[in-house]
Amino acid sequence: MADQLSPDEKYNLITRNLQEVLGEEKLKQVLQERELKVYWGTATTGKPHVAYFVPMSKIADFLKAGCEVTILFADLHAYLDNMKAPWELLELRVKYYEQVIKAMLESIGVPLDRLKFVKGTDYQLSREYTLDVYRLSSMVTEHDAKKAGAEVVKQVEHPLLSGLLYPGLQALDEEYLKVDAQFGGVDQRKIFTLAEKYLPSLGYAKRAHLMNPMVPGLTGTKMSSSEEESKIDLLDSKEDVKKKLKKAFCEPGNIQNNGVLSFVKHVLFPLRGEFCIKRDPKWGGDKIYTVFEDVEKDFAEELIHPGDLKASVEVALNQLLQPIRKKFELPELRKLTSLAYPDPSKTSDRMQILDIRVGKIVSVEKHPDADSLYLEKIDMRGIESQAMLLCASVEGDPRRVEPLDPPEGSSPGERVFVEGYETGKPDERLNPKKKVWEKLQVDLNISDECVAQWKDKQLMTKLGQITCKTLKGGNIS
Amino acid sequence: MADQLSPDEKYNLITRNLQEVLGEEKLKQVLQERELKVYWGTATTGKPHVAYFVPMSKIADFLKAGCEVTILFADLHAYLDNMKAPWELLELRVKYYEQVIKAMLESIGVPLDRLKFVKGTDYQLSREYTLDVYRLSSMVTEHDAKKAGAEVVKQVEHPLLSGLLYPGLQALDEEYLKVDAQFGGVDQRKIFTLAEKYLPSLGYAKRAHLMNPMVPGLTGTKMSSSEEESKIDLLDSKEDVKKKLKKAFCEPGNIQNNGVLSFVKHVLFPLRGEFCIKRDPKWGGDKIYTVFEDVEKDFAEELIHPGDLKASVEVALNQLLQPIRKKFELPELRKLTSLAYPDPSKTSDRMQILDIRVGKIVSVEKHPDADSLYLEKIDMRGIESQAMLLCASVEGDPRRVEPLDPPEGSSPGERVFVEGYETGKPDERLNPKKKVWEKLQVDLNISDECVAQWKDKQLMTKLGQITCKTLKGGNIS
Repeated sequence: MADQLSPDEKYNLITRNLQEVLGEEKLKQVLQERELKVYWGTATTGKPHVAYFVPMSKIADFLKAGCEVTILFADLHAYLDNMKAPWELLELRVKYYEQVIKAMLESIGVPLDRLKFVKGTDYQLSREYTLDVYRLSSMVTEHDAKKAGAEVVKQVEHPLLSGLLYPGLQALDEEYLKVDAQFGGVDQRKIFTLAEKYLPSLGYAKRAHLMNPMVPGLTGTKMSSSEEESKIDLLDSKEDVKKKLKKAFCEPGNIQNNGVLSFVKHVLFPLRGEFCIKRDPKWGGDKIYTVFEDVEKDFAEELIHPGDLKASVEVALNQLLQPIRKKFELPELRKLTSLAYPDPSKTSDRMQILDIRVGKIVSVEKHPDADSLYLEKIDMRGIESQAMLLCASVEGDPRRVEPLDPPEGSSPGERVFVEGYETGKPDERLNPKKKVWEKLQVDLNISDECVAQWKDKQLMTKLGQITCKTLKGGNIS
Repeated sequence: MADQLSPDEKYNLITRNLQEVLGEEKLKQVLQERELKVYWGTATTGKPHVAYFVPMSKIADFLKAGCEVTILFADLHAYLDNMKAPWELLELRVKYYEQVIKAMLESIGVPLDRLKFVKGTDYQLSREYTLDVYRLSSMVTEHDAKKAGAEVVKQVEHPLLSGLLYPGLQALDEEYLKVDAQFGGVDQRKIFTLAEKYLPSLGYAKRAHLMNPMVPGLTGTKMSSSEEESKIDLLDSKEDVKKKLKKAFCEPGNIQNNGVLSFVKHVLFPLRGEFCIKRDPKWGGDKIYTVFEDVEKDFAEELIHPGDLKASVEVALNQLLQPIRKKFELPELRKLTSLAYPDPSKTSDRMQILDIRVGKIVSVEKHPDADSLYLEKIDMRGIESQAMLLCASVEGDPRRVEPLDPPEGSSPGERVFVEGYETGKPDERLNPKKKVWEKLQVDLNISDECVAQWKDKQLMTKLGQITCKTLKGGNIS
């Protein structure tokens, strides 16, 4: 298809529905000579939901226009966003993102032969890239870095240093991914202008920037995946889609911040070129629109009822989701999904079911009846039910026992978790019949670095590792 | 010698004359078990001068106490401090630092078998280290990073991002150099406390910190090597030492900010255990002091005249410098010195003798008499003498000529320089007899990336590279 398009037609397809383009002339010039290379980046954190159809619709445009598209999975950023998630889990999430994005684009029906996936850690920890990060940091002022991230980096009371580094990394990605342009939401604008300003100082070409408008979420006003309940997951069933769409904000006649209308504009129209309002004959029957503005106008004039709009979007959305759901019925993809995003309610084989806490040993006395037993008094700030003291020990040598040490500065009562599983909720009371502790305990041990582990994963508090003094390779009980 | 010292004696030697020690208990505990591992870092920028005898005197103490001492040459920091200095030059400076520091310690007379030199770039650009830099940046707040560098990072109106990164790097160095303690001036205190606070959060041990007081320079009040004229270089002749010492601030009876007295306290006493005031018999004759406080008292009471103090320091200093001067008479070390710190006045073979500027082409007309010649009008903001237009060309093809392009945003009149040689002053007027241009021009060409080069070094303005559109591998004339 792209072969039949003129450079001007390609340019129009690439830039349609965008809010802003920086570097138009350069883009047009490249298109006269060859296909355009574009990149879009996403941090591989939460599960992608239907809002991802918005950038995907543009990526579909790029692919239709013959562009070479690189999707960057920012796994380093994802890691830094939540350092308790282990790399193996992040690796699975990258795989999930790749599969689900492919499924979305297949569902849209675009050719994928010019689509490439790259992981951030494939190059962002290399010597060259790192040196460039430092070179850039020696040119960019604190002020410019802060300004660049203002709309994208979480604004908190005590901002972290990493937030100042991200804009620079994103600028360098353009050079290391060898693209002509970067695509993103208009909230990235200040990062894009930072990239345009500073890449040439490093001796690299200034890239063009393609910016999507900020589109309200289909079922709410925010695009963030934090309000999990209301988001429509790409694998949600038809019933869930109906239920969630029902709750979506869509006031009669109100076209402002209307996520349902926006979805029609930014996803359904670009993909289909038309949109059908399904309606009971007594309210006028079905009506096919070929221009979004007509839908918007009819909605504003209350000629389209919110219920009919939602029902029509539901039909179209389910058509998009059906091939994705079907693909993810494959056993290997079902497995990938459950590994990458484990269901927090099914954790019977996981450590987080246990409520391990930091305790302060108040006193230790020899057991009056047994030489190798001690009686300890432990302060755990009132948390006492089923309390037992975890100690490192060496098999067959009852004298070699050491209590585990929490990180310096720990307070009694602090939760101990396995790295990567800090969010699980412990069971109120362990069912003794299930022998949960006994099953889990066999995988607890002390590493060669004297760190307490469960299945090769560290035991930690929010302050750091749980260790013991000397008993390398010991057991924990 | 260290073998005969008790742990307590070692501890006293390690900590004598320090202003502050953080982590005393840990140090004492290590010394009960084994020798201590200490590191001191220095950026390999300017030529080390006599003020380096202050940290060297402490490093001598560490070595005498049996410590394993690592000296870190922060070449990455040196590079970022002045990105126009090419890596080859920085490499030579690292070698110079190593040689001169060895010579200083040999002159002091300490064994060097427990001394190790490490370059920052040996590990600071590795994957592991870089990931730790990011991990740390995701824990340290902007505020903490800023506070940590407040006394060490140059305080300027528009602070650079790099200044916020350095404290974290210095903290990580402790872990990567596998030391028990870091040594530095008390101006590093806030970086040291940052390290103590954050290394444990990364799962690394908290290190001890040994802090020297801030010692005024021998010949002035500042220790910085920026006031080059007044500093006594380690290779200065006896005459220069005399001349520079003469100018040193040393008021009769004033013991505040007295660099000469401080040198006696922090260098000569620790090294010799005594100090001899050389004096004409009519003023009391020579007097040997075995306690610094007696020197200070006598100077305060004007029993020691500044002239006699200076003359006596001159003798002692020359004794320290003599072996260094002698070592640096070796041809290879003379060569190293002149390569690492080239004399700016001997630059006859360098591009900086040329005054190349950015010009704006106002008009181009064909030469009335020759097909392959053009007449150009160039705007160079009034700089006109001997003006000629530099063009890229391909040998044997007079039609393939392109003017060179300055970086975007350049203004006419801006200076063009060779990377690493931006500071040279061009000759007012080239001597046509010397054929300077002709000699230099043979090494000018266009790289495969279309960048203008002289001897493989880029031609640049302050905004970036000089390029041409297409003539890869072309000549410049």
